[in-house]
Amino acid sequence: MSKAITPRAQDYAQWYNDLVIKSGLADYSAVRGCMVIKPYGYALWENMQAELDKMFKDTGHQNAYFPLFIPKTFLSREAAHVEGFAKECAVVTHYRLKNDPAGGGVIVDPEAALEEELIVRPTSETIIWNTYKTWIQSYRDLPILINQWANVVRWEMRTRLFLRTAEFLWQEGHTAHATAEEAMEEARRMLDVYTQFAESFMALPVIRGVKSPAERFAGAVETFCIEALMQDGKALQAGTSHFLGQNFARAFDVQFLNKNNEQEYVWATSWGVSTRLIGALVMAHGDDDGLKLPPKLAPIQVIIIPVYKNDTQRATVHTQALEILEQLKKAGFRVQYDDADHVRPGWKYAEYELRGVPLRLSLGEREIQQHQVEAVRRDTREKLYLPFDQLPEKIGDLLDQIQQDMFHQAKSFRDQHITTVDNWDDFLRALEEPGGFVYAHWDGTPETEIRIKELSKATIRCIPFPGQLPDHGSGHCVLTGKPSARRVLFARAY
Amino acid sequence: MSKAITPRAQDYAQWYNDLVIKSGLADYSAVRGCMVIKPYGYALWENMQAELDKMFKDTGHQNAYFPLFIPKTFLSREAAHVEGFAKECAVVTHYRLKNDPAGGGVIVDPEAALEEELIVRPTSETIIWNTYKTWIQSYRDLPILINQWANVVRWEMRTRLFLRTAEFLWQEGHTAHATAEEAMEEARRMLDVYTQFAESFMALPVIRGVKSPAERFAGAVETFCIEALMQDGKALQAGTSHFLGQNFARAFDVQFLNKNNEQEYVWATSWGVSTRLIGALVMAHGDDDGLKLPPKLAPIQVIIIPVYKNDTQRATVHTQALEILEQLKKAGFRVQYDDADHVRPGWKYAEYELRGVPLRLSLGEREIQQHQVEAVRRDTREKLYLPFDQLPEKIGDLLDQIQQDMFHQAKSFRDQHITTVDNWDDFLRALEEPGGFVYAHWDGTPETEIRIKELSKATIRCIPFPGQLPDHGSGHCVLTGKPSARRVLFARAY
Repeated sequence: MSKAITPRAQDYAQWYNDLVIKSGLADYSAVRGCMVIKPYGYALWENMQAELDKMFKDTGHQNAYFPLFIPKTFLSREAAHVEGFAKECAVVTHYRLKNDPAGGGVIVDPEAALEEELIVRPTSETIIWNTYKTWIQSYRDLPILINQWANVVRWEMRTRLFLRTAEFLWQEGHTAHATAEEAMEEARRMLDVYTQFAESFMALPVIRGVKSPAERFAGAVETFCIEALMQDGKALQAGTSHFLGQNFARAFDVQFLNKNNEQEYVWATSWGVSTRLIGALVMAHGDDDGLKLPPKLAPIQVIIIPVYKNDTQRATVHTQALEILEQLKKAGFRVQYDDADHVRPGWKYAEYELRGVPLRLSLGEREIQQHQVEAVRRDTREKLYLPFDQLPEKIGDLLDQIQQDMFHQAKSFRDQHITTVDNWDDFLRALEEPGGFVYAHWDGTPETEIRIKELSKATIRCIPFPGQLPDHGSGHCVLTGKPSARRVLFARAY
Repeated sequence: MSKAITPRAQDYAQWYNDLVIKSGLADYSAVRGCMVIKPYGYALWENMQAELDKMFKDTGHQNAYFPLFIPKTFLSREAAHVEGFAKECAVVTHYRLKNDPAGGGVIVDPEAALEEELIVRPTSETIIWNTYKTWIQSYRDLPILINQWANVVRWEMRTRLFLRTAEFLWQEGHTAHATAEEAMEEARRMLDVYTQFAESFMALPVIRGVKSPAERFAGAVETFCIEALMQDGKALQAGTSHFLGQNFARAFDVQFLNKNNEQEYVWATSWGVSTRLIGALVMAHGDDDGLKLPPKLAPIQVIIIPVYKNDTQRATVHTQALEILEQLKKAGFRVQYDDADHVRPGWKYAEYELRGVPLRLSLGEREIQQHQVEAVRRDTREKLYLPFDQLPEKIGDLLDQIQQDMFHQAKSFRDQHITTVDNWDDFLRALEEPGGFVYAHWDGTPETEIRIKELSKATIRCIPFPGQLPDHGSGHCVLTGKPSARRVLFARAY
């Protein structure tokens, strides 16, 4: 099977699909909009899960599991929520098939219609708050700090592997608090967790901020987000955290006796990241030869490839390679040794480049004589020689360096793609060249936001938190010229 | 809320429900047949998952993820499979809701009917083998050794927490092989993995064997199982591993070029265990005071409870308890310290007994003066005193001892509940007293198997592998008197 990858410059979308498919991250499935996450992609997800799960537990959260199905009427309880999610959902209407009297197959048994249809969860606020009602009586039952790892379904019409699929995997945190302040703190804390995860593990620089009302989660009072930039200049929302106020507590009548002995509605947050982050990893770091995975998440951090010309050489190299393999395994690296004999080293080099393995070690007779291995970094293609007697330390240092350099590379790219503009022409021009984020004044109205989207396909990615971008104070809307309190961040987005 | 638990002798089923609910393992949900797995129950599942996942990876398997939905026609491809699963499945027929023109809610949008209905996976053989078709061309692509952690749905009419729910969590292994021998070896290997998990981690003795044709997985050539005994004398199938032959390869036309350059259908296995195992843990070990969790899986292995009469004592005890807590955490134990001041130690003792924590440490001023803690085993209620300067070693030893003793306790109970019988009267009597497994001859026909079930409610749990029970050679069927080659194991079952 050809592993030829469409160059980014030729067709970015096709380049992305080529990378995902040919590197073995995922595959299409027979079910419209649903994908198969292949072992290599799932191993990446497992590494992401492990790190996130640890961070959630370190901040006091526990995992739990709630039903896949949501009674149809639950969705309607929160007015904004149903508007946001009823449009695209999988509806279970029957609970049995029967043999088709007209043929060999099976048909839906019309006698097995559900009294109330069930929705396959697009998100779990409703079923969870209906449950919290029975768990919460007094302030002593609060806070509840729960996370769920689950699959969810949103019936997307245009799907793309990882980025937009009908079913995807994610985690959704759902917390309940006695005060608005505490809930707000929680929502902000989890955005910090996501920021740390994106930057320290994914090597993905993000801008933190608040969504405009139009981009808010359906049912939230305030949505916080982290926004990343892909290499084609489009933004990607990499995580969201919502302050839900008392909206879901009111919808499901969840009250508690506070310390003053008064009944009060409970305060809520929810927050989530999904397998979409794998798409972000691909698009933020990959090149025309394949993936570049950050060492902290890569399923294979180090690949060892033997180089030999005959069977005698092969035996010598094999023995030495196994020794190095064991040494690196013992040191805790995720390392593999590819001793397949039916393909040549060059083919393997290309294969592991495609798969984004951060560090490739080659070992031949010459290297053995010189007591060293040849190491090639995936990110910079820099070639180094590492002495046998310092392998674990040197490799540890190199992987750290790769992790940092990948972040700085992505950050430098991102920073070069934030353009501050003050008029509409510049706004449109900046979206094309250099592309990326455009930092501009907006008059604060949803009408202008919609108009800007219609005219430019750009949306407000966020109103950035202070301290990340220069604060230019107030000004005038880039489209309407009306007064604006501060600049916000626009981009075309995934 | 009262924590009173119905005694086993009074109402075993109610005792089980009381334990599950009151210990905080799970809760009912608003969706018929679906449960909420609460944090304590989910932590138990996470520990089970971690151990199983390690065992799967150590035997060469990788995780992946396949779609939740299965096209309706896929089910019909394998004749036995559709018979087994079409009867009870959740069917997605529509992909959109819309506002109800007649009222405030939402209704299913009749214009959004799917062309082909989708089934929420009851098990994934069909969707996976449809995918394997594109992954397998030659013997070089084999074996494929994949496991999936997922939720599945089977529309059960009578549900019970963990034991039988419409949705449950499980793992399903799906492997593809070039030869029948290799597939058979794999199916047996995974049954060994399940056996080791049940016995070494769950402290649950099991009998390994083959299912009779009537009890086989729908679509399998041979189903292997492990069968455990609950305290009410009913058996529980704790895991199954299926040799699927070429059935699914034929159904989905999955052929490969073998080493002789011939096209051949691929050989398959599948194997799974589910959250049902949590029900088994509860029923095999619990008593009238609560759960008894085996140390290797318990979310909390050690609970530290301070005992004091006044604030001065409280401060002293608190300091010492924190020191012990840190010491035990550092030693790698899952340990918690309950310093809540609004409930008395006796209340806490009962609470952690209910939750099945294997070891309780109490610490008061007297213990501190004597440089020791009081330790009480959950399984035997034995009280011991452990010197401060040997805590990690002593506690490690104790937890190992508890793990072993729980297994031997369950095994002794199980062994006392296997009755060998040679006639129908004894068969019926043994099912009542002592209850449990009845080891009897059967003439090998499905008719007799069905008749025995009708008359006694007992089913053939398995035809045991050799070496576990005495082999009495051939004999005569306990019901029909016809010749029988060997005894099989009957029981009433969950």
